Amino acid sequence: MLKRKDGRAESELRQVKIIKDWLKDPYGSCLIELGNTRVVCAATLEEKVPVFLKNKRSGWITAEYGMLPGSTPERVKRERTSGRIYEIQRFIGRSFRSITDLEVLNGYTITIDCDVLQADGGTRVASITGGYVALYDAIQYMLAQGMIDRTPLKNFVAACSVGIVENTPLLDLTYEEDARAAVNMNVVMTDDLSIIEIQATGEARPFNMDELNKLLTLAKDGVKQLFGIQRDVLSLRV
Amino acid sequence: MLKRKDGRAESELRQVKIIKDWLKDPYGSCLIELGNTRVVCAATLEEKVPVFLKNKRSGWITAEYGMLPGSTPERVKRERTSGRIYEIQRFIGRSFRSITDLEVLNGYTITIDCDVLQADGGTRVASITGGYVALYDAIQYMLAQGMIDRTPLKNFVAACSVGIVENTPLLDLTYEEDARAAVNMNVVMTDDLSIIEIQATGEARPFNMDELNKLLTLAKDGVKQLFGIQRDVLSLRV
Amino acid sequence: MLKRKDGRAESELRQVKIIKDWLKDPYGSCLIELGNTRVVCAATLEEKVPVFLKNKRSGWITAEYGMLPGSTPERVKRERTSGRIYEIQRFIGRSFRSITDLEVLNGYTITIDCDVLQADGGTRVASITGGYVALYDAIQYMLAQGMIDRTPLKNFVAACSVGIVENTPLLDLTYEEDARAAVNMNVVMTDDLSIIEIQATGEARPFNMDELNKLLTLAKDGVKQLFGIQRDVLSLRV
Amino acid sequence: MLKRKDGRAESELRQVKIIKDWLKDPYGSCLIELGNTRVVCAATLEEKVPVFLKNKRSGWITAEYGMLPGSTPERVKRERTSGRIYEIQRFIGRSFRSITDLEVLNGYTITIDCDVLQADGGTRVASITGGYVALYDAIQYMLAQGMIDRTPLKNFVAACSVGIVENTPLLDLTYEEDARAAVNMNVVMTDDLSIIEIQATGEARPFNMDELNKLLTLAKDGVKQLFGIQRDVLSLRV
Amino acid sequence: MLKRKDGRAESELRQVKIIKDWLKDPYGSCLIELGNTRVVCAATLEEKVPVFLKNKRSGWITAEYGMLPGSTPERVKRERTSGRIYEIQRFIGRSFRSITDLEVLNGYTITIDCDVLQADGGTRVASITGGYVALYDAIQYMLAQGMIDRTPLKNFVAACSVGIVENTPLLDLTYEEDARAAVNMNVVMTDDLSIIEIQATGEARPFNMDELNKLLTLAKDGVKQLFGIQRDVLSLRV
Amino acid sequence: MLKRKDGRAESELRQVKIIKDWLKDPYGSCLIELGNTRVVCAATLEEKVPVFLKNKRSGWITAEYGMLPGSTPERVKRERTSGRIYEIQRFIGRSFRSITDLEVLNGYTITIDCDVLQADGGTRVASITGGYVALYDAIQYMLAQGMIDRTPLKNFVAACSVGIVENTPLLDLTYEEDARAAVNMNVVMTDDLSIIEIQATGEARPFNMDELNKLLTLAKDGVKQLFGIQRDVLSLRV
Repeated sequence: MLKRKDGRAESELRQVKIIKDWLKDPYGSCLIELGNTRVVCAATLEEKVPVFLKNKRSGWITAEYGMLPGSTPERVKRERTSGRIYEIQRFIGRSFRSITDLEVLNGYTITIDCDVLQADGGTRVASITGGYVALYDAIQYMLAQGMIDRTPLKNFVAACSVGIVENTPLLDLTYEEDARAAVNMNVVMTDDLSIIEIQATGEARPFNMDELNKLLTLAKDGVKQLFGIQRDVLSLRV
Repeated sequence: MLKRKDGRAESELRQVKIIKDWLKDPYGSCLIELGNTRVVCAATLEEKVPVFLKNKRSGWITAEYGMLPGSTPERVKRERTSGRIYEIQRFIGRSFRSITDLEVLNGYTITIDCDVLQADGGTRVASITGGYVALYDAIQYMLAQGMIDRTPLKNFVAACSVGIVENTPLLDLTYEEDARAAVNMNVVMTDDLSIIEIQATGEARPFNMDELNKLLTLAKDGVKQLFGIQRDVLSLRV
Repeated sequence: MLKRKDGRAESELRQVKIIKDWLKDPYGSCLIELGNTRVVCAATLEEKVPVFLKNKRSGWITAEYGMLPGSTPERVKRERTSGRIYEIQRFIGRSFRSITDLEVLNGYTITIDCDVLQADGGTRVASITGGYVALYDAIQYMLAQGMIDRTPLKNFVAACSVGIVENTPLLDLTYEEDARAAVNMNVVMTDDLSIIEIQATGEARPFNMDELNKLLTLAKDGVKQLFGIQRDVLSLRV
Repeated sequence: MLKRKDGRAESELRQVKIIKDWLKDPYGSCLIELGNTRVVCAATLEEKVPVFLKNKRSGWITAEYGMLPGSTPERVKRERTSGRIYEIQRFIGRSFRSITDLEVLNGYTITIDCDVLQADGGTRVASITGGYVALYDAIQYMLAQGMIDRTPLKNFVAACSVGIVENTPLLDLTYEEDARAAVNMNVVMTDDLSIIEIQATGEARPFNMDELNKLLTLAKDGVKQLFGIQRDVLSLRV
Repeated sequence: MLKRKDGRAESELRQVKIIKDWLKDPYGSCLIELGNTRVVCAATLEEKVPVFLKNKRSGWITAEYGMLPGSTPERVKRERTSGRIYEIQRFIGRSFRSITDLEVLNGYTITIDCDVLQADGGTRVASITGGYVALYDAIQYMLAQGMIDRTPLKNFVAACSVGIVENTPLLDLTYEEDARAAVNMNVVMTDDLSIIEIQATGEARPFNMDELNKLLTLAKDGVKQLFGIQRDVLSLRV
Repeated sequence: MLKRKDGRAESELRQVKIIKDWLKDPYGSCLIELGNTRVVCAATLEEKVPVFLKNKRSGWITAEYGMLPGSTPERVKRERTSGRIYEIQRFIGRSFRSITDLEVLNGYTITIDCDVLQADGGTRVASITGGYVALYDAIQYMLAQGMIDRTPLKNFVAACSVGIVENTPLLDLTYEEDARAAVNMNVVMTDDLSIIEIQATGEARPFNMDELNKLLTLAKDGVKQLFGIQRDVLSLRV
C-alpha cells in the first residue's frame, strides 16, 4: 500500500486555509493555502464588456493566472504567453462563468486574478476554490452599490485534483505526487455536487472507467470539505 | 425526442474519410474529413529535442494547430497566440505522447501539424484521429531508414466529441450542435478502449455521473469505428 | 539546349487546374493547382475600411499569404513576420487593387487569403491567378445582394513566373528550376495583355534588355492561357 | 505646518517589517512591509552569466520588478514592457551591483525578483531594502556550498523615498503624499551612509540646493533605521 | 592631476553647435553637436492626448529616443524595447513636461524625437538641450497658428553630464571618460539655475555629500553656457 | 507638355551629393542627398554568417532600412515590422548581393544600414546608390586588414526611380510626383548598364512594352550619372 510522504490518508486533503480580504484594494480578495501551495486571488471590476458581447445584454467574468518567479524550486520566467498559462486561465474562467448568470452582470466585467506565491501542486484548483471567495465578495460589493439588483451566482464552485500514483487513487496531490502520477485529473464541482468540468489525462498510461469513477468519488469528498471552508470564511454557515 | 438537422441517429458519426499521403513532402500526411470538417495533418521530423530533454535519452512529439482564414463563416485572423489555439495544440500533443515510448525516439522530434481547411465542429478530435495516420507513416519511414529499431507506438489513438443537446446525449457534434450543447466533452481513447484524456465542460449547466457515463459510452462507440477506418487506410486490416 | 526535368517545352505551362467553390463558407474560393503547387484562395468581406480611407468614398482589397508547415520538404515555421511573406502579400494585394475601381467598393474591404498547401515554385503567381477567381465570385455575391450596383473589376488579372536557366528563358519555373535560375521574374498582366507589375531580379547575374524582352514574351504567352482557364472555370467562355 | 494623514512626523518612517524566508524555495527571500506597501523579494541563482560577461571572470546580479494586478486601487495590467517597469528594475539592479564585488561571483548570476503584493508608495525603495536581505541569504548559501570562498558584499544597502509636499520636506511618502509632492527623490545608501544613487525629480516645480540638502538629511535618517532592521532580521546585531 | 585626452579643463564643455531647422518637415527641429556626439531633435504635433488625460483640460509632451545602427563603434541593433531606451526617453520627456504648463497645450500632444547619429557620451543630455530648441519652435508655430494663446513654456531647460574620474570631478564626459568614471551624474536645470532632475549613480564606488556638491557646481557652470547657446540660436539674446 | 514643379527636364536628376565618411565609427559610411531626400548609409562588419550559410564557404551582405520619425510631413512611427520596410530592405540587400562574390567574404556579414533623415521620394534608390559607397569603403578596410585577399565586388551598382505622370515618362520622381504617377518603377543597374532588378507597378493603370522601354532608357541615363558621382567621391575617376 502507498504511503504518502506527508502521512496523509489517500482521501485526505492537505491543510486548507483561506484568509479573506488579504489585499486592501480589490473589492474581493483572499489568500488560499493548500498545504505549501499559496495563491492570492483578487476580483476587480470594470464597466465594460469584451467586443463579442457588445450590445448583447450580458456581462463577463474572466480569469488571469500567474506564478511569481520565486514560487518554485527552479525560477519561473515572467513570460505571459506560454500554452500552459493560457490553458489554465481559460479553465479557471470557464468555471466561474458556468455558475454565473452573466445577464445579471450586464455591462460589467469581473477579472479574477490568481497569482501563485508558492507552488506545490494544485495551483489551478486552489485558484478556483479561492477565486470563488474573491468573486463572492465582489458580487456583495456590487449589490451594496446597487450596480446589480440580485446575485448572479447560481452555485458555489470549488475544485480539487486527484490522481493515480502507483495504482492508488489519491486526493489532492502535492507536486512530488503529481510528477509521479500515471493519471492526473482536475475536477470542478458545484455545491450540489454536480460536475462543471473534468480534465483527466493519462500521462503515463491510459485508464479505465472503474478508475475514473474512483477518482470522481475522491474528488467529491474533497470538494465537500472545501465548500464547508468557503462557507465558514464567508460566514455563511448556518 | 431530438431530431438532428442532418438526420443522423444520436450515436451516429458523420461520414469519415481519410486520404493518406495528401501532401507530397512530409514523411506522413493525410486529409481527414468528418462531415464538412476537413483537416490536413502532416508529420515532419527533426534531429533535435527540446531543451528540457537534452541528454535525457528521449525523443519528443509535439503538435501545432491552425485554422485557415476561410475555414469558418466569419474570417479567422492569422494570430498564433490565442489561448484557444494553445489549449488545443497542447491537447493534441499530449494524446500522441501518451501512446508513444519517447525513449525509442531518442534524439528526434516529430511535429504533427493539423491545419483546419474547413471547420464544422470537432476539429481537435479530427486532428487527433487524422494526425495518428500521419504519425504512423512517419514512424514507418524512420524504421525503414534505420533511424529507430522498433516502433515507439504502443497503441492506436483516436478521439471524438460528444455532448448533451436538449438533454439528449449525442455523438460527433456539428458546429451548430456544439454551440447549442449544455455539456461538451472530448474523449481520446486507445484501441483497447482505455481512456487517454477526457475534457468535459458544463458550458450551460453542471452535469451528473449518470450523464457522464452515457457520454463515455457514446464516445466508445465512436472511436471503435474510427479505429476501423484508420486500420483500413493504413492497410492493417486482417 | 536545356532539357526540363518534366519534359516541358520552354514556353509550356505546367498543368493548371482551378476548382471553384472549394470551401463552403467564403463568398468566393478556389483551389488552384499549378503542377505540384497547390494554393487555396478565399475571398471574405467586411463592412469597414482601413483607417487611411475613412470618409474617403472608397473600399479596399487586401491579400494575406501563408504556407502550411507541411507544404515544403523542410517544415515551414508558422511565423507571420518574415520579410518574404510581407513582400509577397503586398505584391498580391497591389495586383488586385490595380484592376479594381475601389470607389465602387465604398465602405467594404475584401480580403483575399492565399494559403499554400503544397509548394513547388510559383506560389505567388498562382495566388494571383486563383485569387482572381475568388475575388470575381465575391463581387458576384455583392452584386446579387445589392451591396454594390456595378462591378468594380475593370479587367481580368493573372500572373506567371519566368526565368533564365542555363541561359535559356523558361516559362513557369518549378522550385528546382527557380533555385537554379540566374534571373527570376514575376509578371502580372491584364487580359488585354497590358502589364500591371514586373518584379525582375538578376539573382546570379545581371541581364540585358534583350533578355528582358524574351522573358516578357514568354510571360505574355503564359497569361493568355491562364485567362482562358479563368474564363472556363467562371463559365464566361463564349 | 503640514499634518500627515497618518499622523507621522516629517522625519518618521512608516512601520517597517521584514519577514525572512517567506518563500520555501529560493535560497534567500523575504516579505517587506513599509506601512501598507508589501513586496516579496526572492533571490535565485543560475550558473551562467550574460553574453557581455562571457570569459571575463565576473558574475552578475540583476533584478526584476513586477506588480500583482490587485496591488493598486485600479487593476494593474500584466504587461512587462512598460517604460516604468524597465526603469525601476534597472534602478534596483544597479543598487545591488554597486555594493558587490562581481568578480567573486565568477560564473554565477543572482536574480532578485521584487513583486509588489500591495502598493502604497515606495515600492522601489522597499524592493532594495528587502531585496538586500534575500541577496544576503543567497550569498550565505553559496558560501556554505563552497560555490564562492568569500562574500562579495562590500556593504549593506538600503533605500528610502523623500519628497517635498506643500513646501515641507518629508521622509517615506505614501502614495497619496507622493502624488501631491512637488519634488520626489529616491536615495540609495550604504551602511557607512555614502550615496549609491540619487534620483531626484522636480515633478511640479524645480528645486534648489538647499532643498536638496534637506531631503538628503531626511533620507540619511531613514536608511539608518533600515540598516538596523536589516541587521536584526539577519541576526547580525552586536 | 588628471589630464583629459582632448586637453580640456575639468570644467570645460566640448564644442557645442546647434543648427536650427535641420529638417524641413517638423515644426521645430535641430542638429545638436556636443563634440563628436550628434543628435537630431524634431518636434511634431498631434491633436490628441493620451488616454489618461482624456477630458482633463490638458495637453502632453512626450519624447522618443533612438540610436542609428552606425552611431557607435559596435553596431547598435534596431530594437525598441531595451530598458536603457525606455529609461532615457522617460528622462527626456519628464524634463520638458516639468517646464511646461500642460493646461495651455490643451488637447495637443507634442512629441520630441531625439535620434543619435553619432554617440560619444552625453547623448541624453544633448537630447534635452537640443530638444528644447525644437520644442521652442514648435510652440512658436502653434502661437502663430492660433492653436494656443500664450506660451506654455515657463523656463528654458538644458542638461549636462558630470562625473568623477580618478577622483577628479569633470564636466561633460566623453564616452571614454564615462566608461572610466566611478560616479556618473546627469543634471537637468532651468535657466534660473534651479534643478529639475538629478540622476546620480556610484557605478564603481559610493560618493559623499561633498563630491555631490562639487559635481552640482560643475553642472551649473555647464548649463549656464548651454542656455547662452540656446538663446543665440533662437535669436533671443539681448 | 508636363512642367515639373522644380523646373527639371523630364530626363534630369535632382542635385545629387554624396559626403563620404559622414560617420566616424563605421568602416564605410556616407550621407547621400537626392534633392531634398537625405539618407545616411553605414556599413558594419561582423565575423559570423546567418544560420543557412553555416559551413558553406560563404559570407553575406544584408541591409536594413529605417526612417527617422521627423523625416516626413506626418511623423513616422518607430515600428520595425511594417510590410513596406521589409520589402524595401530586402530589395536593397538583394542589389548588393547580386554584384558581390559572397564566397570571397567567407565567414563575414556586412550590414548596410540606410536611415532616411529626410524623405522626398526615391529613398530606396538613394539607399542603394549611397549604400554602395559605404560598402566599397568597408571592403577597402577588409582588404587593408587582410581579412580578404581580393575584392568581392564585381561591379558598381546604382539605382534610380522613374515613372509616368500625366502620360509623360519622368526620371527621378519627387514625393509629390510619385504620388501622382500612374506607373512607378525602380531600376537597379550595374556600371556596364546591365539590369539587376526591376520593380515596376501600374498603380493607377496598366502599361505597355513601349512605355516600359521608355522608362528603362530614362533609368539608364540616370544611373550613368550616378556612377560618375560614385567614382568621383571614391576618387576612382581616371
